[in-house]
Amino acid sequence: MTTKGCSLLTADSIPVGTTVRVKVPASSANLGPGYDSMGLSLAFYDEIEVTRIARGLEFELSGQGSEEIARDANHLVIRAMNRCFQYAGLQDFPGIRLKAHNQIPHSRGMGSSASAIVAGVVAANELLPKTARLSFAEILQICSDMEGHPDNVAPSLLGHLTVSWGTTSAWETLPIAVNPRILPVVAIPDYEVPTKQARALLPENVPHADAARNSARSALLTQALSQAPEHLLAATEDYLHQSYRVNAMAPSAVLVRTLRERGYPAVISGAGPTVIIFARGEEERTEIISAIDAAQNDPQVDSFAGEKLSWRVLPVNIDTEGVIVLRVDSAN
Amino acid sequence: MTTKGCSLLTADSIPVGTTVRVKVPASSANLGPGYDSMGLSLAFYDEIEVTRIARGLEFELSGQGSEEIARDANHLVIRAMNRCFQYAGLQDFPGIRLKAHNQIPHSRGMGSSASAIVAGVVAANELLPKTARLSFAEILQICSDMEGHPDNVAPSLLGHLTVSWGTTSAWETLPIAVNPRILPVVAIPDYEVPTKQARALLPENVPHADAARNSARSALLTQALSQAPEHLLAATEDYLHQSYRVNAMAPSAVLVRTLRERGYPAVISGAGPTVIIFARGEEERTEIISAIDAAQNDPQVDSFAGEKLSWRVLPVNIDTEGVIVLRVDSAN
Repeated sequence: MTTKGCSLLTADSIPVGTTVRVKVPASSANLGPGYDSMGLSLAFYDEIEVTRIARGLEFELSGQGSEEIARDANHLVIRAMNRCFQYAGLQDFPGIRLKAHNQIPHSRGMGSSASAIVAGVVAANELLPKTARLSFAEILQICSDMEGHPDNVAPSLLGHLTVSWGTTSAWETLPIAVNPRILPVVAIPDYEVPTKQARALLPENVPHADAARNSARSALLTQALSQAPEHLLAATEDYLHQSYRVNAMAPSAVLVRTLRERGYPAVISGAGPTVIIFARGEEERTEIISAIDAAQNDPQVDSFAGEKLSWRVLPVNIDTEGVIVLRVDSAN
Repeated sequence: MTTKGCSLLTADSIPVGTTVRVKVPASSANLGPGYDSMGLSLAFYDEIEVTRIARGLEFELSGQGSEEIARDANHLVIRAMNRCFQYAGLQDFPGIRLKAHNQIPHSRGMGSSASAIVAGVVAANELLPKTARLSFAEILQICSDMEGHPDNVAPSLLGHLTVSWGTTSAWETLPIAVNPRILPVVAIPDYEVPTKQARALLPENVPHADAARNSARSALLTQALSQAPEHLLAATEDYLHQSYRVNAMAPSAVLVRTLRERGYPAVISGAGPTVIIFARGEEERTEIISAIDAAQNDPQVDSFAGEKLSWRVLPVNIDTEGVIVLRVDSAN
């Protein structure tokens, strides 16, 4: 871990009582052929409030997954805060009270862990004295290194569509404005696919022809999402991940296939099992929501591992701001 | 081969003496990560003139490769014309005189065969009675099927940058306007790498991680070429072909590496051995030409298979029109 090595910083550099609120969007990665590089920021938010307290860690957690989340230094937001503090050269960690109300569901392919990391790092950075604050590039590195890749982190930081590339601690990203006609719909089922499990299903090698085809579609996808939505069905064709993961998320795979057969550009969101579909205009969005409702009569779509599924079907707009600091109460 | 199956067409449907002139741009395919999909139209042209004669085939050929080219029905322009005539439903092939002065060098990665095919099909289509003429989509299919892929055919037809995808007889392409700051330079060495030989060097399979990285770069490349030229060095990084073909074109590979180390976005043009570099503005173009001159002092760059090489280094602008019909003299 690099540190900035500026003048001596300690927990005392942050006055007790300093409070920061951060609002962070969810994200959808991959988007078909953009495996491990493309991500879209979704107007579906987690909010956290962190307060510098005298000592220790306190938690007020509610919402998605709040029952199962660690209430100690292993909490992902706390880990992200500490990583930021450490990078900035803080000699010891301050006491923190974390209030969080999570809306973004966990292990569904909506980028919840990236959102937590971004929220934590941005909140910690905001707590730091101004002279110690990190650059955007540094924040991108820290968040991406923690997450392992920048594809969800970048849209949660920047909003819009992002294309990211690079290697550990040398990540880069380009935000691209999405065509305003594009109105996503997400269909979130109530089964989970842990990202690690989904990654383990991918092969070591793929045919050269698939790699070339996938590259063509990803080149097309940045254009289709920004300039040429009429090509979205072709542009969301993927050859690197979805077909390998069908068995881990069969109901979602069947829903994707059903919608694509009807001409709607549906893909698995991130490592699944959420499905995201790109409507072009309100009319198509309404059609897609009806088509999903109809598809839920298919027994392949409405059950997983013998259990009946329920699906939350939501229109979700594209977020164009990325993470924002809502309110800063300085204790001074 | 499908035919349009319209009313009976014969060679007599084209009056003896009808003449068509066609000007067709060269093209550079792949552009780094856009293997088999991306192509750029270059303002470097072949021109052909075809005249309906009473019978047989006559040739007046000059310029690049004119000594070695078949002067019979195997001439690529004649084969392309016949493919168009056959598709249009012509019952027999008309006599043709072909005048051609080729500037585009052969077997160098400048798309000469795609240019010949496009010129032939477009010229034949123009000779046809208006009611028999093919659509753009049909012309794209015929040309791409003959060439085996659309990546050079599409820019020669349309100009600009093109991203192409699809399968046999179902090819599609999207033209994208290139940022006017981008001013290519080509460095054409006097050794040849036949495309078939270059293709044979590619592996059957590639690592999944390379396929993903390559897809990220190709997504970035359409943006870098249109909107964000500052990212061209990162965007032209390729993981699917150049590294596998180094031994077949070592001088070009060394030149690419030398230029990239200096920050210039250099890639192998098509299947090589021409090198294409994307300057951003006139000043950088001048620097790149100097850098190529300097690199030619490197013994790894100035010889191939024990023979001393010479390099033609040319600024070549991006063509924005694609193939054009210059003059049509009807015999009527």
